[in-house]
Formats: sequence, C-alpha cells, structure tokens
Amino acid sequence: MSWQSLLELAKANDTRSIARCISLIENDEPGYRDLLMSLANSSTQNVIGITGPPGAGKSTLTDGLIGQFVEKGMRVAILCIDPSSPFNMGALLGDRIRMSAWYTHPRVFIRSLATRGSLGGLHPRILEITEFLKSMPFDLIIIETVGVGQSEIEIAGLADTTVVVLVPESGDEIQTMKAGLMEIADIFVVNKSDRPEADQFTRYIEAMTHSAGKNCPVIKTVASERKGLEELVAAIEKDLSEISATDRKFWLLAERAYHLIRNYRMNDISKSTLRKDIEQAVKSRDFSLYSFIENYVNGK
Amino acid sequence: MSWQSLLELAKANDTRSIARCISLIENDEPGYRDLLMSLANSSTQNVIGITGPPGAGKSTLTDGLIGQFVEKGMRVAILCIDPSSPFNMGALLGDRIRMSAWYTHPRVFIRSLATRGSLGGLHPRILEITEFLKSMPFDLIIIETVGVGQSEIEIAGLADTTVVVLVPESGDEIQTMKAGLMEIADIFVVNKSDRPEADQFTRYIEAMTHSAGKNCPVIKTVASERKGLEELVAAIEKDLSEISATDRKFWLLAERAYHLIRNYRMNDISKSTLRKDIEQAVKSRDFSLYSFIENYVNGK
Repeated sequence: MSWQSLLELAKANDTRSIARCISLIENDEPGYRDLLMSLANSSTQNVIGITGPPGAGKSTLTDGLIGQFVEKGMRVAILCIDPSSPFNMGALLGDRIRMSAWYTHPRVFIRSLATRGSLGGLHPRILEITEFLKSMPFDLIIIETVGVGQSEIEIAGLADTTVVVLVPESGDEIQTMKAGLMEIADIFVVNKSDRPEADQFTRYIEAMTHSAGKNCPVIKTVASERKGLEELVAAIEKDLSEISATDRKFWLLAERAYHLIRNYRMNDISKSTLRKDIEQAVKSRDFSLYSFIENYVNGK
Repeated sequence: MSWQSLLELAKANDTRSIARCISLIENDEPGYRDLLMSLANSSTQNVIGITGPPGAGKSTLTDGLIGQFVEKGMRVAILCIDPSSPFNMGALLGDRIRMSAWYTHPRVFIRSLATRGSLGGLHPRILEITEFLKSMPFDLIIIETVGVGQSEIEIAGLADTTVVVLVPESGDEIQTMKAGLMEIADIFVVNKSDRPEADQFTRYIEAMTHSAGKNCPVIKTVASERKGLEELVAAIEKDLSEISATDRKFWLLAERAYHLIRNYRMNDISKSTLRKDIEQAVKSRDFSLYSFIENYVNGK
C-alpha cells in the first residue's frame, strides 16, 4: 500500500494504519519523508511530556492521566520510550510482559518506541512521529520517557508542557541534576506523597523553583490510588493555556524546527555507507577526519 | 590574536593558548571552524571515556588514573563534563569549590565544560574539542562524564575505550539500563570493591557481559585507596591495542564523522534567528512546520 493510501486510512482513524505510518517513519522506509511533508500540521493538539527517574511512578501516573482525559471524552495518543514502561511489553528488557487495559480502548492509542542504538534516550525520529500524531484525530498526545537524570532534557522542546515526576526519596538524585530539572520542568509532581517525608520534600522542590525564579506548580499525587490527578490535570491545562499567550510558543516551534532540520539534512547519509567510505579513505591516503568531512559534505 | 597564532602557541604546548582554542570552539567564536579544518588529526592519541552513575567514584578513579599515566611519563588532557566533578570547581552546582593537585602539574591539562542547555548531557561541541585535543601535544585524552543512565550512551563513539564505573549498590539502577550499559562498555569497574556485597555484584556484572556475548573485563577497584588501578590501566591498554586490529576503528571514525557532519551542516542556522523567522512565518501565513522546514532548508 502506498503511503498516500495509508495516510488516508490513518486520518480516518484506522488504528492499524496509524501504527503502520509510525513504523514507516520509525524505520526510515520509502515514502516516509513525503508523508511528513504532506502533513498540514497547523494543528493545535497539545503534547504533554512525562519524565522522571525510574521508580518514580511515571507509568502509573500516565495510566491515571489517560483515565482523566478519556473521561472528558478526549482521544489520547501515548508514546512510551521508557524501557521499563508497563506499556513496553518487555520488548527491550524481555523479562516481563505486562498489559494495560488502555490497549483496547477505542479512544486510546498506545505505541512503544524502541530506542535502538540510543537505549534510554529518545528515539531519533521521536519529533517526526510526534508531528505525525498531531495530524491524526487525537485531542492530546502524551509522551512518557525515562529520565534518570540526563536525556529527559531533550524532551523540553518536544512537549508543550513537561511534567517531572519525583518521589520523596529522589532527594539525593536531584542534587546533581537540579539545574537540568529546573530547565525542563513546567510542572513538578511529588508522587507517593503519602510517605512521611513527602511534605518536607515538596517544600524543598517549591523552594527550588522559587529560587530559580520559575515558580512551577508542585502537585502532590499518590498515582497508585488515583490521588491528586484532578489537581495535576488542572495544572497541565492552566500551563497549556498560557503557552499561546507568551513567547514560549515560538521557542517551542524553533526548538522543534532546529532538530527537524538537522534530521532532514542528514537524510542523505547512512552510517553504514559512511563507514565504508571512511574505511576506504583511511586505507587509500593520509587521513584527517576534518578534511574528510569537508570533502564528504561538499561532494554531496 | 588570530586563531592561526593561537594554534601555533597551543601546538608549542602553551597551556593558556590551548585553553583559549577550546573556548573558541566551545563558544562558536569566529575562526573556530577554520581552526578545526586546519587540524591534521591523523594523530594516534587515544581517548578514554569514564562514565557511570553519580556517587560511583568516577572522579576519584580519574584522579588515580591520571597518576598512573603521569608516572609513565605521559602527557594527559582531561575533559570533565560531570557537574559533580571535583574538577568542576562548582561552576554548575555553585555549592562547592574543590581543587585537584593536578591543576598545576606540567604534564596535565584539565578542562571542565559547562553543558549549557543540555545540563548533564554532553557539550554540543565535545567531539570537536576532543578532535582539537588530539592535535595537541598530549599522549592521552580522558573524558569524564556523568551517566545517570542515559546520555552516557552518546560517549560510545567519542572515546576509543569506554570504562563504566559502578558500585556494589548500583544493582537496582543498572536493571533499567542494562542493555545501554552493555552497548557502551568496553571495560567495567566495580569500585568500592571492599564492601561486603562487592564479590556478588562483580559476579553479576561478569554474568551480564557473558550473556551479552561481550566478555568485557570487570575490574575491582577501591579508588580512594588507589587499589586496582594497575589492573585497570592494563585492561585499558589491552583494549586500546585491540582496536586497530579490528573493525572497531572504522566504526569509531564513522560515528564521529556522522556527528561532526551533523554539526557542520547546522553551522548556518542559529536558534535565535530561526525563532524570529518562525515567529514571522506563523504571523504572516498558514503555518505548517514541515513546509516551513523544507522552504527554510532549500532557501539556504
């Protein structure tokens, strides 16, 4: 089937076609670029990023958020990039197969992305896939990604609102990544907030965002008991409503455009060909990596 | 001073000029690209990557390794990208100023890189800076970077040999990042191996690398007491000597070339200009991110 026919079916909300389109982009299959170019994504769907260290309860929280939005009658697409996500079905860890009730819900679309070659990081085509989902009949897109400290940074431009999920015992962990967290977070969640040290930790996070001059909301939840979800949804909606009123909208678009352009321009280079060319260059003459690059780029 | 004069002084081992050249590259200052292009880096210096979760003792271990190599009469350059590194002088955390004896040693050059905009991740010009250091009068380059689980992946192509430093209590942490660790590690270090649970943990890591078919050496160290450093140096030297005998050499070069090309091609785009252009596009017409990108790239 051509990408055109596939896209038509996907737009008509055929789940399998949506999934096939994602695979097309994910695997750089023929037509994926034309498909992307054909998207009229002046769409207004919002993207929510959920990130935080492993064990913070991101997946349980995401599960609860899906419930909240579905109850409002919304159609929700979820991208999971956390290898430990229950939605992942053990594709990467191979040691557990869990299933979520949402998989069969008519208003919910869930897709796990393998992170190939950059395990734990974001999939190299995550931005393209997100742009694609924005052209599909969803009201909201949620991206859940593990952030053991570092690569969650990269989600900043990807999501309109980034929720950083922490637990009271994250104290030590966040010391080293304080500045990075402050940079990406629009909303903090203190999950498992029924623990005795939760109040103190919440005040610590509040103080942290105040001193950074950011004043992000800090929401207390107990995701496993569905507590605090309404407050979180309210905070998300408030934050999203503020984006278009500010310059953040353009900052977000510029960040995305930058990364999309970077990918777009590398489309003519495959790592395996590059490797063969380098091998040949090293063997045939005096090799300098920088001269090689200059010749390579200009020869294209 | 022109970059040509600066480079001449740097090549003559003037430490301040080496530092100035790095700043030139780090800050995308005029001339930095010509400087890079002028490097005849057919050099054979090796790059050692040291990574691992915070608290594993990477800095103490790096400190010990510097001692080992300096004793052999080698000239060593160190790049630190860990905000919690003792070499960082509190530039990022601002809450501690520690100094290392190596700062004043004539055969040691230490540079901390701020990670601006991607805190905790690698500096966007880390590859360029490393290529520059390879053209300087050093025998060895060590890159110490925090890896709380994710972005350490990216160092794989950067270093010739990647040492992953763990501690016996890392058990839980590495569950989620097992595949990623196996992908990047050439050598594992179990630091703080005087702890009672160290032997069991070491066997676990050994079993892990066996089952991945990789058989990386697993070295036990107590970095704070300088124990196990000779064994680690031997393992590093053995691994480095094996690179040129295998295809790994070309894989490493291809990985680096790919990222350098990507940066090279984005040199004509500044995020702030991009942002202004997008703002204008959004305001003036029907905006689609993908069409915008296509026009933008082709208009360049």
